Amino acid sequence: MIKKQYLLSPGPTPIPESSLSSAVLPLIHHRTAEFSNMYASIIEGLQYVFQTQEDVYILTSSGSGAMQAAVVNILSAGEKVLTINCGKFGERWGKICRVFGLDVHEINLEWGAGYSKHELEAELSRDPNIQAVFSTLSETSTGTVYDIKGYAEVTSQHGALFVVDGISGIGATPCPMDDWNIDVLISGSQKAFMTPPGLAYIAFSRKAWKKVETSTLPRFYFDAREYRKSHAKKTTPWTPATSLLMQQKNALDIIRRIGLKNLFRHHHFLGEACRAGIKALELELFSSCPGDILTAVTVPKECDGKKLLSIMQDKYGIIVAGGQSQYQGLLFRIAHLGYTSAFDIITALSALEMTLRDLGYPFEPGSSVKAAEIILKEYYI
Amino acid sequence: MIKKQYLLSPGPTPIPESSLSSAVLPLIHHRTAEFSNMYASIIEGLQYVFQTQEDVYILTSSGSGAMQAAVVNILSAGEKVLTINCGKFGERWGKICRVFGLDVHEINLEWGAGYSKHELEAELSRDPNIQAVFSTLSETSTGTVYDIKGYAEVTSQHGALFVVDGISGIGATPCPMDDWNIDVLISGSQKAFMTPPGLAYIAFSRKAWKKVETSTLPRFYFDAREYRKSHAKKTTPWTPATSLLMQQKNALDIIRRIGLKNLFRHHHFLGEACRAGIKALELELFSSCPGDILTAVTVPKECDGKKLLSIMQDKYGIIVAGGQSQYQGLLFRIAHLGYTSAFDIITALSALEMTLRDLGYPFEPGSSVKAAEIILKEYYI
Repeated sequence: MIKKQYLLSPGPTPIPESSLSSAVLPLIHHRTAEFSNMYASIIEGLQYVFQTQEDVYILTSSGSGAMQAAVVNILSAGEKVLTINCGKFGERWGKICRVFGLDVHEINLEWGAGYSKHELEAELSRDPNIQAVFSTLSETSTGTVYDIKGYAEVTSQHGALFVVDGISGIGATPCPMDDWNIDVLISGSQKAFMTPPGLAYIAFSRKAWKKVETSTLPRFYFDAREYRKSHAKKTTPWTPATSLLMQQKNALDIIRRIGLKNLFRHHHFLGEACRAGIKALELELFSSCPGDILTAVTVPKECDGKKLLSIMQDKYGIIVAGGQSQYQGLLFRIAHLGYTSAFDIITALSALEMTLRDLGYPFEPGSSVKAAEIILKEYYI
Repeated sequence: MIKKQYLLSPGPTPIPESSLSSAVLPLIHHRTAEFSNMYASIIEGLQYVFQTQEDVYILTSSGSGAMQAAVVNILSAGEKVLTINCGKFGERWGKICRVFGLDVHEINLEWGAGYSKHELEAELSRDPNIQAVFSTLSETSTGTVYDIKGYAEVTSQHGALFVVDGISGIGATPCPMDDWNIDVLISGSQKAFMTPPGLAYIAFSRKAWKKVETSTLPRFYFDAREYRKSHAKKTTPWTPATSLLMQQKNALDIIRRIGLKNLFRHHHFLGEACRAGIKALELELFSSCPGDILTAVTVPKECDGKKLLSIMQDKYGIIVAGGQSQYQGLLFRIAHLGYTSAFDIITALSALEMTLRDLGYPFEPGSSVKAAEIILKEYYI
């Protein structure tokens, strides 16, 4: 039989066909004019997606490397920070900050629960010493999207720096760095940037740069000052992942051609359709405020979560993600992120229906596909 | 006209044709059995090239990231280390160690100069507190290959840990980790590993692991303990550069098929031929003990070094490297590293002759190509 594979995990995400082929072009040496031209075009593209006038720097690392870069560049040992632990990735902020000797005030949310800017405001007002707030735009472990705009407002009033993990959200859901007064924004190539994993991106506001210059946490590979120096020569301080950059250049051209507004609309349609499909099956959305990046679904009591995932993947060829940490086997996560189409959602829901039939879960066959299709019909204009 | 481009820089190096295409295959998700199979095969290949029974870990970073990983995993603030500053990359060991608060005893060599194990032994005997020695197998800025075997002997007698930057040497020139008692060995994908830049590799001896467990320098992204934990599940702790791994798997298959001994012979022939060609032009080798990785050549007084490089590159399409730091414009460096053939050396020397004629340097046309050809004829058996 012919079985195609569909990658609907929240990173890596599918790569545009025209971008794929960029990886096999002759490698460009990173100390040449040809590289600098490519570099300049990529930076412009990254600024467009970050919605910032600030320089965006390119790290060769996963998103976790960029998280470390955010921490070590703006703080000094012993300084007090607030981290919002909203899931596996929000928790990582606290871990990194503790490793580097910061005094961490951690807000522990239930996974999938919301958090209002008023709650953050109250928390900050109790502690004038907090120097930085670490937050997550789209928490990949739960699919929740948080009120970054609101958090930025109250953090800025407090006088602290506001840091956002935008790894799985930037380019798919609004998060304008400059308009919202975000001080440090990070992202990664393997999400809405439509490129294989291996590159991460980071930008600092002017306010953050002042702290970069005085902060004393030890940093070498992730030292923003080195990236700024090399940036002036349109290159990176260390040998970059050149072939991935060649692909990222191509993908950014595609992203600019489509336009950010249209990409936000695209992701919103796919998110709405996916959620409608899940509800039609009387399955429960895991998050109380699900975003348009991925949809986390609670595995129904009737089913074995591990079996559900393995049938989806091995029998039907659909790669979705399971639950992480304490939610292993209790969740599954369908991503609608990056280079995905409306029919990827139809495919995912159809395969989910087939899987649920294999597992004996009772529902009306076709109901989720129908619900999604009605919404997605309106996507095409 | 048709002008082909030849990448003869010491990283990135050319990619085998069959490896190139691996980058465009569907991305493998890093939390699947398919990935674990690939991971296991890559680790085996890396162990083969490192010549070690120890586990080798895969970092998504440039080689400089692996250098930081070596430092932060085996030491605690204030500990005394010895670094051999033999050029731009040897100097980097000292920079990283100072950033992380170590007490650095730096041996400052003239660029391109040798350093004997007896000199190191004498240095170590004067300071029993030295906990680790940081060295470079092949110093990319000068082409010098150092006596790693000898340094390992005297460092081991001293009781310190012995760390080797094998980024541009491993796989091209002998450096058996276990036989020589190397405690920490690092390398990168874009050199003899025949893969685009973006991956780095690191292995620790059992003696080094003991220090990993007690050392207190702050580390998160490069924390060896996290890599060891994930290694047990045949994956990486953070999202890896999947497409580069797919290429590295293919390149390691090629490397194992050729065999390490044959690769050392290959690089030795190409090195000998390149040096013979340079001498035939009465040009001066920059290094007093040049290795088989790259050949650094002093720009003759009659020529402008920058012009020489730009003519080589823009007129003839041959990408070689210039001098770094204080040697900008004074050196050029021809790499014979990784997936290069005997005829790449013929090509490089022929283009160099054409360039020297453009610059009015006096020599007998064809002399360097002839000298190299006589040696390279014997390569083919």
